[in-house]
Amino acid sequence: MTGSYTTDFKGLTFHDAVPRFRDGSDTPRAYLERCLETIAAREPTVQAFAAMNAETARAAADASTARYKAGAALSPIDGMPMGIKDLLETREMPTQMGCEAYRGNFPKRDNAAVTALRQAGAVILAKTVTAEIGGSHPGPTTNPWNAAHTPGGSSSGSAAAVAAGFMPAAIGTQVGGSIIRPAAYCGNLALKPSQGGLNRGERMATSMSTHGPHANSFEDLWAVAIEIATRAGGDRGCIGLQGPKTTPEAAKPARLLVMEGEGWPGIDSASMGVFEALLEQLRAAGVQVLRRADNPAFERFEQGIAQARTVANTITGWENRWNTRNLVDNNPEGVSERAKATLAAAERMTPDDYYTRLAQRDAAQASHRALAPMVDAVISFACPGPAPVWAGDKPGQPLAPRPTGDSVMNTPSSMLFAPVVTVPLMAVGGLPVGMQVMGLPQQDARVVALARWMAGNLKPVSV
Amino acid sequence: MTGSYTTDFKGLTFHDAVPRFRDGSDTPRAYLERCLETIAAREPTVQAFAAMNAETARAAADASTARYKAGAALSPIDGMPMGIKDLLETREMPTQMGCEAYRGNFPKRDNAAVTALRQAGAVILAKTVTAEIGGSHPGPTTNPWNAAHTPGGSSSGSAAAVAAGFMPAAIGTQVGGSIIRPAAYCGNLALKPSQGGLNRGERMATSMSTHGPHANSFEDLWAVAIEIATRAGGDRGCIGLQGPKTTPEAAKPARLLVMEGEGWPGIDSASMGVFEALLEQLRAAGVQVLRRADNPAFERFEQGIAQARTVANTITGWENRWNTRNLVDNNPEGVSERAKATLAAAERMTPDDYYTRLAQRDAAQASHRALAPMVDAVISFACPGPAPVWAGDKPGQPLAPRPTGDSVMNTPSSMLFAPVVTVPLMAVGGLPVGMQVMGLPQQDARVVALARWMAGNLKPVSV
Repeated sequence: MTGSYTTDFKGLTFHDAVPRFRDGSDTPRAYLERCLETIAAREPTVQAFAAMNAETARAAADASTARYKAGAALSPIDGMPMGIKDLLETREMPTQMGCEAYRGNFPKRDNAAVTALRQAGAVILAKTVTAEIGGSHPGPTTNPWNAAHTPGGSSSGSAAAVAAGFMPAAIGTQVGGSIIRPAAYCGNLALKPSQGGLNRGERMATSMSTHGPHANSFEDLWAVAIEIATRAGGDRGCIGLQGPKTTPEAAKPARLLVMEGEGWPGIDSASMGVFEALLEQLRAAGVQVLRRADNPAFERFEQGIAQARTVANTITGWENRWNTRNLVDNNPEGVSERAKATLAAAERMTPDDYYTRLAQRDAAQASHRALAPMVDAVISFACPGPAPVWAGDKPGQPLAPRPTGDSVMNTPSSMLFAPVVTVPLMAVGGLPVGMQVMGLPQQDARVVALARWMAGNLKPVSV
Repeated sequence: MTGSYTTDFKGLTFHDAVPRFRDGSDTPRAYLERCLETIAAREPTVQAFAAMNAETARAAADASTARYKAGAALSPIDGMPMGIKDLLETREMPTQMGCEAYRGNFPKRDNAAVTALRQAGAVILAKTVTAEIGGSHPGPTTNPWNAAHTPGGSSSGSAAAVAAGFMPAAIGTQVGGSIIRPAAYCGNLALKPSQGGLNRGERMATSMSTHGPHANSFEDLWAVAIEIATRAGGDRGCIGLQGPKTTPEAAKPARLLVMEGEGWPGIDSASMGVFEALLEQLRAAGVQVLRRADNPAFERFEQGIAQARTVANTITGWENRWNTRNLVDNNPEGVSERAKATLAAAERMTPDDYYTRLAQRDAAQASHRALAPMVDAVISFACPGPAPVWAGDKPGQPLAPRPTGDSVMNTPSSMLFAPVVTVPLMAVGGLPVGMQVMGLPQQDARVVALARWMAGNLKPVSV
């Protein structure tokens, strides 16, 4: 099965529409109406939205239109239609988290990041589908390039909506691979910030969850992130994302380390060939491409992340255990068998089991920090090849593993608290495959600058 | 005005009842019934409870009675009647947080610490009154030693219930001074653990909030803390409280530093005289009592905490800002003017203002760590003299400042993430005044051991 993605795809962007808002030849309201037309045409297949409120969005777009007319736009994202992953609270739409047990949950509150987006003038249009409570049990969203394939998860709807042209940007969240993987499968740019970089507000349940933007341009990606950070800051106790108010300039890397991780052996040969072709381009541009055998420190780094998926999933399972237990006790039918299996594993753990995983995470972070003097960034696949087909569970059969794809290429950045950007530089069988660029914690602006150079100087490769 | 507290007061304890549960001469159900009798007699005046569920408590006590009969008690706190501060969720009682906007809030969920207490066999009896959403706007609770005086806050009901003999232990929470101050005003022992020491579950909103036990004996205090920690662990990403399963043995300190802080000049001379008499006893016992002038490191430590109240309140105000804004937007009449004033101040802040306070906190923590080779612990007043009279706000007048007393002696331990125990070693005018013993982060068991030595070897002083 193949998809319709080609590497010359240009997704919907916002920053380039702003000059026309200023000169009056376009308006945020008209921009929104174009989004709504695309949604009307494609949403029946893509199913990216858990809820949409066109009425409040139109009112917000009209207010933005009036601000541009008065020369009083609030920020570079004033008037930007946005989707918010359905784990975050929004006052005009329910927050149902892809979970039957949350059906009808409508707290009429705004997440801290949503408050910041509104203060910057953004137009909150829709809640985007999440895999159940941010886990792996999939929602209805399909991959915009081939509806038989998963869009990835758990930020399924945010990734699919941005790829399908429903909106220029959306907020996703990640604890294992939930921003970067779906973005890589759908052909978005996305940023998973340093741990604590963007204020999670009421979503403080786990120690390695982050909020991050999906977009189709670096300008929109960075603007969304920095406009949140300058208003709501980082998580409690953390210095939030720092950097310029305008998009970091492209910066050419001198040395890039290829990260393999436990996912490397499972990557298909077509994808590997495309990736190697990109490495060839990097070398031709004068970038030193380093491999794990080149330095014992690189091998120690690989050893540190060798169990990243287990470490990340075990930590998050423990941290979610009390919340999930309450959900199941109150509504046994309202939680999937997948989530119940995760809960059962967590309830077999002791605090010492958890602390052991935290110690593995600390050690991996130390081996990552040791790379600071040796490389500008780490690169790798942002997903283990193109999005797999998802045909649903078979009645009477064991649950299909990883229905939203495998987070194996993403759990390293999560456990390392590291900023990472995915860039759509590859296509395999008509489906996008992202390349990730990962830096040390707090190097978010630097990682964006390096990724931007790669996007501007490498020719995407298809097979 | 004077109170009825005397330093020979012995509060209700639990650990010494357990042998009689084992030999069948007493039962957890009978113990609970005695608590309920005390409650019936005194609760109309003390008003420590936001909710009580005698029915579910009796069922839990009966189950515990059966376990003792079968020789199958779950832990040293099996059968212990307990109060839970009304900020934490409990499945059989509402969680109304002392706030009109939460009236009727009944999520039927258990906080992680409550889950652990149930697993250990504790009998959850009541929700204890909290000052509004853990702030300073008082609930109805009165000081058990003189009803005209505040019990302190925000863990008003937990402190008052333990002092009044309603239950041998209760859970409080602290972000500024909310465990230690009310305990000191009511004559409890209490532990504010190291930051992250006890799993806060859904209560993860702020960077320096902790859960901690109030009790009338070191045995009960430690058992509650360690039984939570061994089941639910610490906060997300933290190693939780560590230590022996049985109460740490009393340990004599060699060197104690007297902390002054910004509250020192405001302490009345009667209280100061009592405190100095305790220092004299320490010296007579061979303990070296160090003062701020004795070492430049001590002066640097004092400089680090010199603005502790402002730093702590500013940080917490910012961290609570989005939640409080949502509350006020949804229910403008349901939030006190005190909380609205705190919100207004927080909404004038920028992320950089917040980061500046975090940097002050970091620096203070560094100056505290520098004491490690020099002192065993820091001691001071746990409250700035006895509990003040609280007569209510006057209509048409500005809001009375600090109606639950002043957290000025407690904000240092909060901002330092430090474990601290208050010991009822002083009485002034018939009201208790606590002495605090504070250690470095993660020294919880050591601090309990030192405090236990002081409780066992110093003669309480009255004036």
